[in-house]
Amino acid sequence: MTLPADNPEFRDIAKRVNNWGRWGQEDEIGTLNLVTDEVVRAAAATVRTGRRVPLALPLQQDGVQTGMIAGRVNPLHTMVALNLELFGPGTVATSDDAVTMGLQAATHWDGLTHVSHAGKIYNGRPADTVTAHGGAAYSGIEKTRPLVSRGVLLDVARARGAESLAGDHAVTPEDLDAAEEFSGTRVRPGDIVLVRTGQIRQYLSGDKHAYAYPSPGLSLRTPEWFHTRDVAAVANDTLTFEIFPPEIEDLWMPVHALDLVEMGMLQGQNWNLEELSETCAEERRYEFLLSAPPEPFTGGTGAPVAPVAVL
Amino acid sequence: MTLPADNPEFRDIAKRVNNWGRWGQEDEIGTLNLVTDEVVRAAAATVRTGRRVPLALPLQQDGVQTGMIAGRVNPLHTMVALNLELFGPGTVATSDDAVTMGLQAATHWDGLTHVSHAGKIYNGRPADTVTAHGGAAYSGIEKTRPLVSRGVLLDVARARGAESLAGDHAVTPEDLDAAEEFSGTRVRPGDIVLVRTGQIRQYLSGDKHAYAYPSPGLSLRTPEWFHTRDVAAVANDTLTFEIFPPEIEDLWMPVHALDLVEMGMLQGQNWNLEELSETCAEERRYEFLLSAPPEPFTGGTGAPVAPVAVL
Amino acid sequence: MTLPADNPEFRDIAKRVNNWGRWGQEDEIGTLNLVTDEVVRAAAATVRTGRRVPLALPLQQDGVQTGMIAGRVNPLHTMVALNLELFGPGTVATSDDAVTMGLQAATHWDGLTHVSHAGKIYNGRPADTVTAHGGAAYSGIEKTRPLVSRGVLLDVARARGAESLAGDHAVTPEDLDAAEEFSGTRVRPGDIVLVRTGQIRQYLSGDKHAYAYPSPGLSLRTPEWFHTRDVAAVANDTLTFEIFPPEIEDLWMPVHALDLVEMGMLQGQNWNLEELSETCAEERRYEFLLSAPPEPFTGGTGAPVAPVAVL
Amino acid sequence: MTLPADNPEFRDIAKRVNNWGRWGQEDEIGTLNLVTDEVVRAAAATVRTGRRVPLALPLQQDGVQTGMIAGRVNPLHTMVALNLELFGPGTVATSDDAVTMGLQAATHWDGLTHVSHAGKIYNGRPADTVTAHGGAAYSGIEKTRPLVSRGVLLDVARARGAESLAGDHAVTPEDLDAAEEFSGTRVRPGDIVLVRTGQIRQYLSGDKHAYAYPSPGLSLRTPEWFHTRDVAAVANDTLTFEIFPPEIEDLWMPVHALDLVEMGMLQGQNWNLEELSETCAEERRYEFLLSAPPEPFTGGTGAPVAPVAVL
Repeated sequence: MTLPADNPEFRDIAKRVNNWGRWGQEDEIGTLNLVTDEVVRAAAATVRTGRRVPLALPLQQDGVQTGMIAGRVNPLHTMVALNLELFGPGTVATSDDAVTMGLQAATHWDGLTHVSHAGKIYNGRPADTVTAHGGAAYSGIEKTRPLVSRGVLLDVARARGAESLAGDHAVTPEDLDAAEEFSGTRVRPGDIVLVRTGQIRQYLSGDKHAYAYPSPGLSLRTPEWFHTRDVAAVANDTLTFEIFPPEIEDLWMPVHALDLVEMGMLQGQNWNLEELSETCAEERRYEFLLSAPPEPFTGGTGAPVAPVAVL
Repeated sequence: MTLPADNPEFRDIAKRVNNWGRWGQEDEIGTLNLVTDEVVRAAAATVRTGRRVPLALPLQQDGVQTGMIAGRVNPLHTMVALNLELFGPGTVATSDDAVTMGLQAATHWDGLTHVSHAGKIYNGRPADTVTAHGGAAYSGIEKTRPLVSRGVLLDVARARGAESLAGDHAVTPEDLDAAEEFSGTRVRPGDIVLVRTGQIRQYLSGDKHAYAYPSPGLSLRTPEWFHTRDVAAVANDTLTFEIFPPEIEDLWMPVHALDLVEMGMLQGQNWNLEELSETCAEERRYEFLLSAPPEPFTGGTGAPVAPVAVL
Repeated sequence: MTLPADNPEFRDIAKRVNNWGRWGQEDEIGTLNLVTDEVVRAAAATVRTGRRVPLALPLQQDGVQTGMIAGRVNPLHTMVALNLELFGPGTVATSDDAVTMGLQAATHWDGLTHVSHAGKIYNGRPADTVTAHGGAAYSGIEKTRPLVSRGVLLDVARARGAESLAGDHAVTPEDLDAAEEFSGTRVRPGDIVLVRTGQIRQYLSGDKHAYAYPSPGLSLRTPEWFHTRDVAAVANDTLTFEIFPPEIEDLWMPVHALDLVEMGMLQGQNWNLEELSETCAEERRYEFLLSAPPEPFTGGTGAPVAPVAVL
Repeated sequence: MTLPADNPEFRDIAKRVNNWGRWGQEDEIGTLNLVTDEVVRAAAATVRTGRRVPLALPLQQDGVQTGMIAGRVNPLHTMVALNLELFGPGTVATSDDAVTMGLQAATHWDGLTHVSHAGKIYNGRPADTVTAHGGAAYSGIEKTRPLVSRGVLLDVARARGAESLAGDHAVTPEDLDAAEEFSGTRVRPGDIVLVRTGQIRQYLSGDKHAYAYPSPGLSLRTPEWFHTRDVAAVANDTLTFEIFPPEIEDLWMPVHALDLVEMGMLQGQNWNLEELSETCAEERRYEFLLSAPPEPFTGGTGAPVAPVAVL
């Protein structure tokens, strides 16, 4: 096993991107502080056609989870009432549903507490402030302010002329630069960046195992790119977010540690960026108003989200 | 029991507000058809300050459900991993959550199939197209297009100079007119109208039983007001949406039948409109961009939503 | 599709094994009426060594379900408290678990309402007395009296000198006769018969797909054997109970209809009979006290059970 | 707060009842080791009439939990299929259920890991061997051998000529002696002792809050009684097992710590002993065969059980 603490590259990057204390010792939302009213006003101003593109996968038993990640179950939809004439025959009848699901199972945000490293979560708090009976006492997903900002699609696959990236493709800062150039839009502080690999096409075409593994994803070197640009949050169209298996042998989930723990930046996974890719290509612009508020589970270390891009 | 089918007022209104076939026999989304790209462009243009106001209650065990509605359970948040060093000591550790909840338990949209009447759901389809194994085959909540539009707050309580409406107050078309006048904004086709009663203050102050019952809510005569204005969807800050117990003795849930079945118009419940009320009063404007996409549960007869108003 | 109603063999057997009205119009438990106090006394008298053999599979995420049966989910075990010192540091700490599972997912009894045929359940009641909001109004699994009786193992595989039966082996009345002969024990009224195929070895050796399909199981002709012997209940070590795919092409689940609907006889599935097979062979006797009370879910159409054979 | 570690009486008793190492360092089942084949043979020999008495409460939404214990939810019964003609019209139709529940919510066994004290569980193992992703690595409820033994009802309420004990009644060793005397049966090694307070009558008569609190229950001094007699397990008819609020002010759950952690003895709660009390009084004997195998959830710190007494 390669421990992050023993890897010089990880350690150096961690030091450079660390945001602990940047917004005060009390802060629980990290880079979401960068989404100012001004950023949102500018985001609203990007709307031109009024087209809306949904980015969530449907929530269903046949979801993206394969069983590879223990306990992260696809949504189980059940009924507790079915055309029930509660007040007698001929009265208005109701149907009611109940669901069980993993909060990280479908299109979701990883909350800042979804991972810890060396016993710490974001802002240097002890990892054991996340408990079974209350979830995350600090930086729970319910603390994320209503998440609306400017969204920018960095369509790495399309910028490379590919339908999707290969399973061993680590998306590098250079890839991000090229996709930004391709987009014609400069990423600004407070933006939510959507990185498209095309990997989710595997799931959409029916092969959820191929979708899961191996998977292209973000390189260990991307957190610094996002940090330099003061991005508010990043999401992509893969199960694991970062390249999986990892680029440095046996160094697992370094990007999670850098983004969530060191920077305090939300990560989004399993976002369906296919229709958005088509729409942006058609409209020849890659910026939009993005609404992506997580379902506010108290103490959640993550949450499902139904993001919408408004162009 | 007073059956809707036997009540002349209900029957007359039902006839006048019925939208079956209006958008074709294949239609599954009803009044959401009224949210055009143009409407959304205009909605984006309402943004001035960039302030964002979240309208969802936190999702937690101590939610609004009291047990009064069988099977509609408050969210149960559980952990399936807790700082788990999956790859060995010193590696990045993950925490994962799972949840069980009623889809109509918290801040939610009632889907068009949440109620049926006389064996029918919206667009005249048979009610038994909703089943236990797949939920709603037609008009499932996942069919609702990404729900973003202009929102208008009709602050009935504030317009009347009250903190909240009394438990036996049926919000009438006249109340809506007065609140519209008070708002200075004319409700337009495709708008999402938020009707504030202030009732949710009961829950927020710790008394969920008082919140549940008795409750102010929309009168049987309001669907026609919404129909005339071609509103896309309506939400409020009560558990039951309509006045409860009902205004006509033993005529239960007539508004649900009119809105969902006859008109094909989504209803939202348990929306927290308190902060929005303050913000609108402060900014002296009652229109905003409203993002409120339901979590897209396949076949869901309703779904949680984390709405955000952007002013 | 071959409809049961159109198949002469099915129709004839159904007529012969039908128990509707046999224990009165009010009866909800069918052949469990055959378990009299006398039967149980005799069952207790079979105990000689005091050895106890558990017959339930462990309840866990990695259970027998493969996803083939929609909605029938393996147990998801989660924590809601973990060494929680509720009353302060140094006080006694508690751990609490929550679970979500299909009632028919693991070692279970099919209740009498688990299937219906031609709109009817056991005793001729309408199938629509099973509803989403209350489950089974009649013959719910909670109605089964505490299920203890004499158990008899019919070890069909061992009687044939095989480790397990082939995937296309329909266990016939002749197989039951041979296994009964092999056992040296005559099946009597009120007995619970356990039929061993050895199929569960597939699951135990790690191949749950091979376990599920194709699978040996009981032939369409066995219900009459059980009926003639006045057996109280039957369980086996397969996922589907009856042979799957079926012996008559496209005639699906005829044994379920005969056992549960016509006879009113509980069926057990996914029972691990491997250790019992060894023990019976060792002790050279195939009768024992069997305790197998289902978990009494109100309205359940089935329930998990943790059966124990006492020899 | 009174810490167990600071209370001399607790400390002394703990020392005297401690069973760590008694069955070896590898042992995970504690006093269940006392249930030998011989004990079970003798248990079977107690059966005279063949009457069976079920001791489990029905599993339903309207169960004993009031919300007082966070996360311990009553069973939510839902449907995932309802008379579903999977293979086409006229074919055999299936109904399937799913459930979510707290493992300690209804009639259950506390596993040995349900509590820890001073960082330890039974046999001196570290408490943190119980985790969110796997539950209890040691002494999980699935490790309990098939739980059948002789049961003895100590009907403390009836022995005192009362319907039920008062809410502030701590059942003492002297109470146990008197009830044993009343029963005419001497408690022996390996027995499962059922202690009846009558408290569950509160729940059965519709008042679950009165059932929960205040509640009679076992005194701090009873573990030594059970230890001296080498009892295998103890269950009663209360929510909290021990007296609640506790007899020594602010010394919470000492009996849990003594029984589960020090002795390694399973505790049962919410057992309905009313019918059994009537039956034993009628038959004038208080011993029986007791079958009470917990549902074997892998890693469970407790589990539902559907116990049956066979007289």
